[in-house]
Amino acid sequence: MLYEINEKALKLEREGKKIIRLNLGDPDMSTPSEIVEAAYASMKAGNTKYSSSYGEQKLRQKIAEMHGVKTENVGITPGSKWAIFSTIFLTMKNGGNIIIPTPYWTAYDLIAKTIGAKTKLLKTEMETNWKVNLDDLEKLIDNETKMIILNNPNNPTSKIMDDKTLDGIVEIANKKGIIILSDEVYGAIAFNKTKSILDYGADSKHILSNGFSKTFTMTGWRIGYIVANKMLIDQVTKLNQITFNNVPVFIQDAATKGLELHKQIAENIKAKYKQRADLASKKLGEAGFKFTQPDAPFYLFPKREGLDGEKFTLNLLDNGVAVAPGTSFGDYQEHFRISLTAPDNEIETGLDKICEATQ
Amino acid sequence: MLYEINEKALKLEREGKKIIRLNLGDPDMSTPSEIVEAAYASMKAGNTKYSSSYGEQKLRQKIAEMHGVKTENVGITPGSKWAIFSTIFLTMKNGGNIIIPTPYWTAYDLIAKTIGAKTKLLKTEMETNWKVNLDDLEKLIDNETKMIILNNPNNPTSKIMDDKTLDGIVEIANKKGIIILSDEVYGAIAFNKTKSILDYGADSKHILSNGFSKTFTMTGWRIGYIVANKMLIDQVTKLNQITFNNVPVFIQDAATKGLELHKQIAENIKAKYKQRADLASKKLGEAGFKFTQPDAPFYLFPKREGLDGEKFTLNLLDNGVAVAPGTSFGDYQEHFRISLTAPDNEIETGLDKICEATQ
Repeated sequence: MLYEINEKALKLEREGKKIIRLNLGDPDMSTPSEIVEAAYASMKAGNTKYSSSYGEQKLRQKIAEMHGVKTENVGITPGSKWAIFSTIFLTMKNGGNIIIPTPYWTAYDLIAKTIGAKTKLLKTEMETNWKVNLDDLEKLIDNETKMIILNNPNNPTSKIMDDKTLDGIVEIANKKGIIILSDEVYGAIAFNKTKSILDYGADSKHILSNGFSKTFTMTGWRIGYIVANKMLIDQVTKLNQITFNNVPVFIQDAATKGLELHKQIAENIKAKYKQRADLASKKLGEAGFKFTQPDAPFYLFPKREGLDGEKFTLNLLDNGVAVAPGTSFGDYQEHFRISLTAPDNEIETGLDKICEATQ
Repeated sequence: MLYEINEKALKLEREGKKIIRLNLGDPDMSTPSEIVEAAYASMKAGNTKYSSSYGEQKLRQKIAEMHGVKTENVGITPGSKWAIFSTIFLTMKNGGNIIIPTPYWTAYDLIAKTIGAKTKLLKTEMETNWKVNLDDLEKLIDNETKMIILNNPNNPTSKIMDDKTLDGIVEIANKKGIIILSDEVYGAIAFNKTKSILDYGADSKHILSNGFSKTFTMTGWRIGYIVANKMLIDQVTKLNQITFNNVPVFIQDAATKGLELHKQIAENIKAKYKQRADLASKKLGEAGFKFTQPDAPFYLFPKREGLDGEKFTLNLLDNGVAVAPGTSFGDYQEHFRISLTAPDNEIETGLDKICEATQ
């Protein structure tokens, strides 16, 4: 229902209605001007031709340095979504199943089903701090299981996986020969330290997907990357060659500029979202919602017992606030997701309307 | 071998060798500055967010007007390659076969095979002016045939299909319930009038794929489009949502600016390539190569009896000129493809080296 809510919100806006949009992970802030200027300079310099489907060497090198891997382990993609789609497509095209802990980002399931792969959902719950139960995971694995998708930090809960649980998942995956695809797109701006799948070695079969959207406020630029073993990067590149060919070079140059300013930009963004998360926690807590404290931007995933999340979401949209129902992320009817990606005053008004709506 | 030659050419260039690159359809000219400035203005105006996976309304409307269809019949894609990949993916995912006249653009076959579809090649020959034989086509069709891919004007021959042949193909396809995917990416800058698949009605099952790369010298910007019935556009959009999401809005705004200047830009480009095609025809003719006169940019597909096209191509690359062997386009060992997309003086030198190489 995530996309339907968004299309409805866009429709209401086109009809002239003011909608406070807390339904998407699309920051209200602008892309830093240094990044815009770098793109323009690159365009003017004539970087408007076809280029390598691996991505530009300079950008790959910078990403490789940042993660402590080799350049050959890095592939540039049009957003982290393509990193996820392409690796699932290549891993699952001969069938099999994927285990996905829930709550989860809708796209994983949609991608798997579009490709014809089966998914097995592993439910985690707020009451146990969204922890993956390792015994349950092991029981869910069968001979057809080829992949586990982790989202760390998680969308929609903004929880970071504790080291011990992640160690346990990696151990199980290694033992059974299962690939972990770890989507860490919120990792660089997390409030607390996040252990990466790359901490277990870049030459393993595991895959990191990441992007520039969240860290550099570059959602609409569509640039992300994969870190994986060379063989997979080569395969993804072959798929790139017959699909989109390459991310525009001037966009890659803009992302390279972003990486040069990485620390400064990431710190600013982190501070901003921490402030918003604190405000939201306070208001929602006072209104009696239950939720876990976010470890990262942008989301809260509050619960109220007995809530019909879809009805609540639709009513709220009629009242001018767009959020996403919990059912968009799995079997979470009593939850909904708030994305703190609107201007501060809108977030405040939006939160007030949310708190009133459930009285 | 098309991609291998290109990677080898790039490698030689990195090693400091000067390569005249006549191997890719990537124009040497720059993107017109009005288009670059439009992209920059759009970025600065903050059009750097996620947007609709259908594409921007304004651009879709302009394309719809140009082709005389409804806005709902238009979907924006990252290059015409995605238009082709996505429509083949959606049409063929439950199996079946695709008929492709040869010589053909390599990507069609690679895409089909990647998706698991079978291809049936229908050979056309220089000696019969590259005409599709309708009887042969009808014989090749079986119960599993779901699609015919046309490339009109054709890469690598630069031939336009004559109206009678196209009428015949459409008639056969309609009778048998087969979808025609017509790649007309060279259509807007053809030297002679090209009948479009849309001339047979936009509400049919047939599909037009097109792009901005060739007409507006925007290869590296990665923007193209599909014109098809609404149901297919909706399906492609759902696939867009889980793959790349949207073409950056500032790139769509740049393309919109291109369409505003369409006539002027297309006329300039057409004149330039006509001049190059005339030069190449003269030199190659004098050197005794056989070929058909190009109806469109950018290619010539000459033949010399007894030529080993792959060996010829590799030797030529060592001599500083990159072209593509005929075998990259089907069973055409005695042919090779020249792309007239380098600066004029390089084309002249390149042609001289080509003509010498076969003496």
